[in-house]
Amino acid sequence: MEFAQDSDNTLSASLHGERFSVSYLLRGPEDEARAMATDICFEQTVEFPGDLVPVGPIREDIVGHIEAFEPAGSNRFRATISYAVETVQEDLVQFLNVVYGNISIKPGIRVEHFELPESITSKYRGPRFGRAGLRSLLGQAERPLSCTALKPMGLSPRELAEQAYQFALGGIDIVKDDHGIADQVFCPFEERVERCVQAVAAANAKTGFRSIYMPNVTARMDRMQSLARRAKELGAGALLLCPALTGIDALRVLADDDDIGLPLMAHPSFGGTLVTSKESGMEHGALYGTLMRLAGADASVYPNFGGRFSFTREECADIARATDERLGSLRPSFPAPGGGMTPSRIAEMLGVYGRNFILLIGAGLHTGGVDLAANARRVVELLGAV
Amino acid sequence: MEFAQDSDNTLSASLHGERFSVSYLLRGPEDEARAMATDICFEQTVEFPGDLVPVGPIREDIVGHIEAFEPAGSNRFRATISYAVETVQEDLVQFLNVVYGNISIKPGIRVEHFELPESITSKYRGPRFGRAGLRSLLGQAERPLSCTALKPMGLSPRELAEQAYQFALGGIDIVKDDHGIADQVFCPFEERVERCVQAVAAANAKTGFRSIYMPNVTARMDRMQSLARRAKELGAGALLLCPALTGIDALRVLADDDDIGLPLMAHPSFGGTLVTSKESGMEHGALYGTLMRLAGADASVYPNFGGRFSFTREECADIARATDERLGSLRPSFPAPGGGMTPSRIAEMLGVYGRNFILLIGAGLHTGGVDLAANARRVVELLGAV
Repeated sequence: MEFAQDSDNTLSASLHGERFSVSYLLRGPEDEARAMATDICFEQTVEFPGDLVPVGPIREDIVGHIEAFEPAGSNRFRATISYAVETVQEDLVQFLNVVYGNISIKPGIRVEHFELPESITSKYRGPRFGRAGLRSLLGQAERPLSCTALKPMGLSPRELAEQAYQFALGGIDIVKDDHGIADQVFCPFEERVERCVQAVAAANAKTGFRSIYMPNVTARMDRMQSLARRAKELGAGALLLCPALTGIDALRVLADDDDIGLPLMAHPSFGGTLVTSKESGMEHGALYGTLMRLAGADASVYPNFGGRFSFTREECADIARATDERLGSLRPSFPAPGGGMTPSRIAEMLGVYGRNFILLIGAGLHTGGVDLAANARRVVELLGAV
Repeated sequence: MEFAQDSDNTLSASLHGERFSVSYLLRGPEDEARAMATDICFEQTVEFPGDLVPVGPIREDIVGHIEAFEPAGSNRFRATISYAVETVQEDLVQFLNVVYGNISIKPGIRVEHFELPESITSKYRGPRFGRAGLRSLLGQAERPLSCTALKPMGLSPRELAEQAYQFALGGIDIVKDDHGIADQVFCPFEERVERCVQAVAAANAKTGFRSIYMPNVTARMDRMQSLARRAKELGAGALLLCPALTGIDALRVLADDDDIGLPLMAHPSFGGTLVTSKESGMEHGALYGTLMRLAGADASVYPNFGGRFSFTREECADIARATDERLGSLRPSFPAPGGGMTPSRIAEMLGVYGRNFILLIGAGLHTGGVDLAANARRVVELLGAV
């Protein structure tokens, strides 16, 4: 048989010695946890039993390295494992494949944290606006930002636009679609965006604020980006995406698209099992903070502690930390806690997050009376009283 | 303010009364499980407290309906909840958003099964080849099919092609990339596909078999489809994708692409937490069977019981059932159990799966001696001895 001409690259020549590392939390007694750490090194790379891996650069460089191993609480250990940068290239999908591909199916392994060299982080734009850019866009330099969701599903574009008008009139910074509102026959995307953009602009003309409308562009892969571009053309101020539904790389695609160039908010729909099992998946900060930021989210939605979901205060603080820690030269993003928030929770949130968060308040704006603008105004005032 | 002209559609006129239903397994005593079922109806649709939902069609039709509620084992209940078809339209992403969006973050809720009307299933092509088509393509009418993975990561295209040649020479039906092999600098996609296609063709010319090479096209969203089309041009016989990494809709995009038109195999990388928590996520059959089939997988890879992962025999049988149960007029797909399989497991697998499965055997073909073709031949003979 004849083979095509060989590539000039040998493995050794391809590898430049740079590695990224991932800390994993491993459940079990020490001997089992050590065995799990070794298993990860092989499972996530060569997927071969150790004795079958050829000696040389594959065994030396492609197989993961255990860089550190230490206790991390009761019956738990932390293994820091490094991988060659060339195994993942500039591909976020392949990055997650190496970080947590097959081992996602092996219980007891949880991704805690990433350490990424410049050669990886520089491949990502990250948040196009970030905290400072979003504040500047909204003309809010100091106080926590406010965001609400147009709902319930089933309302027409006209009805949602009337809501949007009231919320913007009350000074809500970001008026977004509820994440379940898509391109349904009873609420077509194009008509909704057109009406809501007009409504928010009309309110801004009265108030002098710079509120923005943020449509949900979570959709089929072959429509997502065109919905986003159309939203931009129609004057949307930002975009909402559920990366666990679309694939996280959809967020990066939007972030990289200079024809769009809008702030992006990531919503956690469908991705819950990645964090809710305490012994598998990823730590809250790694997922909602680091990963969403790497993919380009300017803001990352998650359920706040004490709402109708089950995150703890510590897990939420971990997310907020990760939105702001050093990640190459990527901009910090906004944590956007929500899920059953009410005006009475604001003081406590200020205590945990300081002023750098986006309060996501939905139904809580409908419960203070029928005047949505007045309800919104009270919340914005509370946020401003820092 | 001026609003754009209103749409002609009212909600009532938009809804046609057709619903799809999802059975959920709920953890807890009965009163808590009943409350969870009610909560799902609201959380997954209007995301509004019940008292805020307007009377009329939103409350009647958009909010989920509890169709049935019954015990499902110790401290567990099954709630069957229906949703209006119009909430999800023909969008797989939005379907998952409604089925398991926000509630993925609420522990104790597990998707068990889908009941989909023709108005939904008819929107999906499903497996383009299915069991019969894949058997016909491979010229294997009777016995279980065989599949192996080229590995380890780090080998060059030439080295992987030499493996591919040996495996095809031994009669392995599907020679696929290991799922970690991407478009790395040490193993460029284009060169690899070219070489492996040639190698398998050369082996086929000797054996008379119709083995195929199946490259991995899991990649950045903006490259995935072009890699797949290029693979087709270069003569690849099928494609491998990891839908939990790319977003499940990427699979549907490939399945719908008539310029590609190749069999598709889904790999479970990164999606493990959706099944491994017994009290959240999805049942194995719903995820690896029904959903992958809906998205267009001709074969669905998962870890077989008794391998190096933790699935039980019953969970695996559930997957096999779901690949073949009625799902509109969609073709049945192949279960492709793997993960630490060896020739000695084949008899047991035949007992559980019958002849309609794809044996995925990787490292197990490297352990019988240095002659890979001979190792492969032994496995194929065992499969043929049904």
